[in-house]
Amino acid sequence: MPDPRRAHDTIAAIATPPGDGGVGIIRLSGVSSRSIAARMFRPARPSFTDFTPYTLHYGRIVASDGAVLDDVLVAFMPGPGSYTGEDVVEINCHGGRAVLAAVLEETLRQGARLAERGEFTYRAFMHGRLDLTQAEAVAEMIHAPSRSALHLAQAKLSGLLGRRITELRSGLESLRARLAVAVDFPEDEVECLAPGELAGDAARIRAEIDALLGAVDRSRTWREGALVVLAGRVNAGKSSLMNALLGHDRAIVTDQPGTTRDYLEESLNLDGLLVRLVDTAGMRPCLADDSGHEPIDAVETAGMHMGQKLMDRADLVLLLADGTAPLDAATLETAAKLSPGRALAVLTKQDLPGFDPSIRAAPGLETVTVSSTTGHGLDALCVRIRARILENAGQPDPDELAPNARQAAALGQAAEELRLLEADAVAGVPYDLLSVRLETACATLSSITGEITSQEVLDAIFDAFCIGK
Amino acid sequence: MPDPRRAHDTIAAIATPPGDGGVGIIRLSGVSSRSIAARMFRPARPSFTDFTPYTLHYGRIVASDGAVLDDVLVAFMPGPGSYTGEDVVEINCHGGRAVLAAVLEETLRQGARLAERGEFTYRAFMHGRLDLTQAEAVAEMIHAPSRSALHLAQAKLSGLLGRRITELRSGLESLRARLAVAVDFPEDEVECLAPGELAGDAARIRAEIDALLGAVDRSRTWREGALVVLAGRVNAGKSSLMNALLGHDRAIVTDQPGTTRDYLEESLNLDGLLVRLVDTAGMRPCLADDSGHEPIDAVETAGMHMGQKLMDRADLVLLLADGTAPLDAATLETAAKLSPGRALAVLTKQDLPGFDPSIRAAPGLETVTVSSTTGHGLDALCVRIRARILENAGQPDPDELAPNARQAAALGQAAEELRLLEADAVAGVPYDLLSVRLETACATLSSITGEITSQEVLDAIFDAFCIGK
Repeated sequence: MPDPRRAHDTIAAIATPPGDGGVGIIRLSGVSSRSIAARMFRPARPSFTDFTPYTLHYGRIVASDGAVLDDVLVAFMPGPGSYTGEDVVEINCHGGRAVLAAVLEETLRQGARLAERGEFTYRAFMHGRLDLTQAEAVAEMIHAPSRSALHLAQAKLSGLLGRRITELRSGLESLRARLAVAVDFPEDEVECLAPGELAGDAARIRAEIDALLGAVDRSRTWREGALVVLAGRVNAGKSSLMNALLGHDRAIVTDQPGTTRDYLEESLNLDGLLVRLVDTAGMRPCLADDSGHEPIDAVETAGMHMGQKLMDRADLVLLLADGTAPLDAATLETAAKLSPGRALAVLTKQDLPGFDPSIRAAPGLETVTVSSTTGHGLDALCVRIRARILENAGQPDPDELAPNARQAAALGQAAEELRLLEADAVAGVPYDLLSVRLETACATLSSITGEITSQEVLDAIFDAFCIGK
Repeated sequence: MPDPRRAHDTIAAIATPPGDGGVGIIRLSGVSSRSIAARMFRPARPSFTDFTPYTLHYGRIVASDGAVLDDVLVAFMPGPGSYTGEDVVEINCHGGRAVLAAVLEETLRQGARLAERGEFTYRAFMHGRLDLTQAEAVAEMIHAPSRSALHLAQAKLSGLLGRRITELRSGLESLRARLAVAVDFPEDEVECLAPGELAGDAARIRAEIDALLGAVDRSRTWREGALVVLAGRVNAGKSSLMNALLGHDRAIVTDQPGTTRDYLEESLNLDGLLVRLVDTAGMRPCLADDSGHEPIDAVETAGMHMGQKLMDRADLVLLLADGTAPLDAATLETAAKLSPGRALAVLTKQDLPGFDPSIRAAPGLETVTVSSTTGHGLDALCVRIRARILENAGQPDPDELAPNARQAAALGQAAEELRLLEADAVAGVPYDLLSVRLETACATLSSITGEITSQEVLDAIFDAFCIGK
């Protein structure tokens, strides 16, 4: 996490994702950005004398030993009109690992320090270019799993949530001011601000906070994706269905056969809805074997336990059954335990001779018939998965302000403080005691935008960033 | 591969590597780049009227449905002074997958076509911004595995190889001119250009071509990395050593236990030298079991065969032996077959009680003792691996012009044509027949820089690119 004592260093990092690509960017920020870049840059245009702000300059990066490292475009963005609010230089290189490593190393040799996670955005926050909700939205933009998540993050990046929080806080501040007058002129207390009026005003602001909190649950599926768990006996066809849905073979990652039984998670984008598909095939069956006699070792027991926990957390459970064999007692038992609103039964192996759907539908659950081999029924299954999740999650509202977990926790605290304030006011608690609650609620709201925030909170936020942002 | 009929489309692609990062770039090239970008861009500065060339403009990308997609920097680079030689726009976005996908989709909705692999560089070549050796060097820069490979690619990107080829070709062209005079004035043939003089001049140019070809082998290790194969019996500790060398646990990727026996390759950077480390642990032993009686199925046999082929191709074989057990006959037999210059024996499990190096060194091979558990001997092993490879590969010459496989093949053909010409000249073959050989050699050299190149060759070259370059 950025150490405040090192806030005056010039920092450098690769700003593009790791890997091979057409273009890669080295970003510098700090007072020496321009001079470091100038020492490494050999302009192609003989008339070049210095970097013109916000202009792309073509030339080469040359290491201190004289070796030409790359042909580049360099842009200098002077502070405060830059991302970080400091002097920033971006070096647009060819996108290979060795190229970017060589150019980055040269910036370090010339006096820059390697940036820490999120340090560019941290500096933008410290220089007032972004409030804390916007800084968090940068990370949410980068990691957005779907277009819906992108819109939710973009609304926050534009500062809408920050402004909404600031409005709520100024509502509380004006209530504090009126309360202060009432405390200073106790004889006029009732006239200035009757306890019922105080409680009513607090309740109105609390209702607005609760409305924001409501969006947290409503948007969760869109922000994080829906968890869909494939359950069923060993030969029900879970791995085949997972592979068929992903459209490609995905290997099980195992250290030594039998020693790693973690679960497989893969992402599927169903028309803008991210589905996190979890297969329990790496474990032993989630369902006990019919006979109950097969040996179950410690790892298998742990695997089964994890399967049950995943099913409990799932937005949707796909209960698979082999359509060529009679439904067994364990599958029927599991079907009976699942909530029909959060489960689909999937009869597999439709292409095999012994398949007969008429006698094998799981009672009480909507049933879809598929063949992972021929692809029969997969489209229909995807449509039903999406529809069933949306019945529970609702449609996304692109303009909704969706607080993240940290913001929701602070909003919840502020709302609770106001609820206690309302009860105290009605119970006749003295106003000078009530004003402490109002102060706490205001400070809690301030922590969301970062006007008052502890270093620990900042650490937690910026440590979640990638390096180079 | 780029279809010449679609050369006038405006193309778009994500130019940065896939993944999450601080910055991602959407690149457009073609006549409509500027107007497409203008329709999507909402400038932050109210005074903005149009893109100023080579200038970063701050603003937002808005989709046609009005949704704000991202805060961006946009740069317009008019042709011919751009990478492709056409009008180019680069949109500097936040680096998330969903953001980049959304902005790219919007460029397509506005009339751009998704670029094919290498299509930006193909256009640069077609517009004369790069010759073919430079276009190939772009891909070599991006995929350079080490700093040495980077320097070799950079020398070619700067046009040095292209110029060298052009010099060789003009040498041949002037010889052709002299030959043409001699053909036109046969009575003066001997005075104009004696057969011995013709053969001598051809031989001088051929020697220069051979010098370039010599660099192909000398630079191979630096361009592609050295192949180091871990061999040894099942329990010799190959996987443990591989993991220890890589400094992290690397799981075996297997579809079903026992069904996938492909080999594992990982890269190790030894002080700028790329080592491609191959473990044969996914297969059954490269060496047959002592007893010779264990069942060997088809997959295992294939695995063993692959192990032998890898060992034959390797720059270095590490023959592992369990230092706590007597050396078995199969390991001794393999040790005897290996060339001491291209092999190291590695005694493993130095940390275990039964370890005794004195009686277990493989005869005839330099032996290093290690423990993958404690890390004992790993540094020494890395030093010896690097030294042994360099004894064979030589030190890199950063200014060496190292042709790639395609270029080397063409150089070889030209040299062969010249060798035949020399023999024919000395044998008294008529000059008009000899001139055909000279023409062929000239055309072959032209194909290297792309002055004369078939569509098939272009297809092969640009299909090796990533999309977005």
